[in-house]
Amino acid sequence: MINKKRFIAVIGGSQCSPKEARLAEEVGRELARQGVILVCGGLGGVMEAACKGANSEGGVTIGILPGENHQAANPYVQIPIVTGIGHARNMAVVKSAQAVIAIGGSYGTLSEISHALQSGIPVIGLNTWSLSRNSKQDNSIILAQNATEAVDKAIELATDQ
Amino acid sequence: MINKKRFIAVIGGSQCSPKEARLAEEVGRELARQGVILVCGGLGGVMEAACKGANSEGGVTIGILPGENHQAANPYVQIPIVTGIGHARNMAVVKSAQAVIAIGGSYGTLSEISHALQSGIPVIGLNTWSLSRNSKQDNSIILAQNATEAVDKAIELATDQ
Amino acid sequence: MINKKRFIAVIGGSQCSPKEARLAEEVGRELARQGVILVCGGLGGVMEAACKGANSEGGVTIGILPGENHQAANPYVQIPIVTGIGHARNMAVVKSAQAVIAIGGSYGTLSEISHALQSGIPVIGLNTWSLSRNSKQDNSIILAQNATEAVDKAIELATDQ
Amino acid sequence: MINKKRFIAVIGGSQCSPKEARLAEEVGRELARQGVILVCGGLGGVMEAACKGANSEGGVTIGILPGENHQAANPYVQIPIVTGIGHARNMAVVKSAQAVIAIGGSYGTLSEISHALQSGIPVIGLNTWSLSRNSKQDNSIILAQNATEAVDKAIELATDQ
Repeated sequence: MINKKRFIAVIGGSQCSPKEARLAEEVGRELARQGVILVCGGLGGVMEAACKGANSEGGVTIGILPGENHQAANPYVQIPIVTGIGHARNMAVVKSAQAVIAIGGSYGTLSEISHALQSGIPVIGLNTWSLSRNSKQDNSIILAQNATEAVDKAIELATDQ
Repeated sequence: MINKKRFIAVIGGSQCSPKEARLAEEVGRELARQGVILVCGGLGGVMEAACKGANSEGGVTIGILPGENHQAANPYVQIPIVTGIGHARNMAVVKSAQAVIAIGGSYGTLSEISHALQSGIPVIGLNTWSLSRNSKQDNSIILAQNATEAVDKAIELATDQ
Repeated sequence: MINKKRFIAVIGGSQCSPKEARLAEEVGRELARQGVILVCGGLGGVMEAACKGANSEGGVTIGILPGENHQAANPYVQIPIVTGIGHARNMAVVKSAQAVIAIGGSYGTLSEISHALQSGIPVIGLNTWSLSRNSKQDNSIILAQNATEAVDKAIELATDQ
Repeated sequence: MINKKRFIAVIGGSQCSPKEARLAEEVGRELARQGVILVCGGLGGVMEAACKGANSEGGVTIGILPGENHQAANPYVQIPIVTGIGHARNMAVVKSAQAVIAIGGSYGTLSEISHALQSGIPVIGLNTWSLSRNSKQDNSIILAQNATEAVDKAIELATDQ
């Protein structure tokens, strides 16, 4: 039986650079080592690499999918959630986590970062977006330099709303 | 590590009769004994009773919640998915399963039955809705007489879309 | 300028029989004559016929679409709402109305009927589903014999939640 | 009858500064003068000011609401769409428009900007977010200096996907 425990989301592009994939895989491994359940959008790229990393260390992976069936899930998703609501599932990905690690990513990732910050869920960034509003820097995204630092900060800041 | 396996949804009212609760708990226990992961809407009533039963036999329980945080989940939900999309999460509950067991229930449950049948996901009914259209009986909901029969039929009919 | 006024949803299959199409068109015409704004799911079949009828009498038509762009709307939709959330938009169709007229329809229509009844929104039925629960007839769907009667009942029962 | 025409979304905070409210009202007025239908999230702040402006010039206003009933709409919304899907309605607001004008705003607005850019819908910004990724400026948000310029650019860039 899985006890109720920590859930951390890893977000990023469904296509990504080799460097981002390595980072994501390392994040996935480190989350698994620390006993954290990985939540993601269930598709390829950063999501797949993170799930692969978690699997290699015996971790649990949840993929919250946009489409109509579970077959779009990457092969490392153990628990596919099939929403059928398209990109609106981005909100569910971050709300199901106590902290979010963003790796690279495009506008879909930015929408997930936005939904997390709107909900008061901490976001740790690895080579991802930075924000400013009305010409003032917004420092809500907490920067990390590497996978281990990202995971440590995410666990430390994980909120229990 | 959880291998990818069978997911069956249990749906029904967030308030229910003692008889429905007993049925749901037995369904939950039987699903767990057969190694099936239980998916539900994560709240009280039939959902809570089913999760309680699954927990008592060491099963895994997923609760796909309508609201904005995981604290609305019943205490037997191990994996809370926080959607923030209200009753639109009903669709995700059934789409994330390969078969659905409906116990009693009101209009929310009927919407879940509808979404399942629309998606070609088998629905097993225990004291629940029956349907007719244009005065012709619709026999899409497969009747079961007790918890064990419901679980056996659900496992037998579980589709892999 | 459109004043805030009555909104009534017409629901039914995206494919339908010629008889259902005639009924839907007549319902659309009658809604327009009575100054009611027609809400629907924006696609073909019953939805298109109802919008066509409303257009022919100078009425206003809103189509709440499941997909990612407005081009799936039937040609009689004047105000396309593009949700991108798939069948989860069924809920928005009925919640945006003060009463619902159901014509024929399959499981998608049944999910809309369920969501309406769950929300306390009156449902008028023309050759559509009938429901029973635990072997007791559920008379929540109010029967009508023809288009005019359906529209009259819908207007009479339209709730202002 | 409303002919099918241009739809432009105005997005921004449900609470806003007096300066933002003035800007939004002017944007609403200008959209109405140009015969554009205004789409928004239907609540207060920037949304209400924009709808007020549009009303004052005889324009049409659509409010796509997050909650369960239309009574949360600001008094200048003529066509309330009730989604019941919470912040996931942000996606529908931008997808229902051919261009988006963002005025100020916080993380909810940022999620709308993200969804628009992800869908290839042009975003015009007035004192709003600016973005950079991996330390490179992202110039996808088109800057405007005042309400008239914002509306002119939005109309010019309005896509017909």
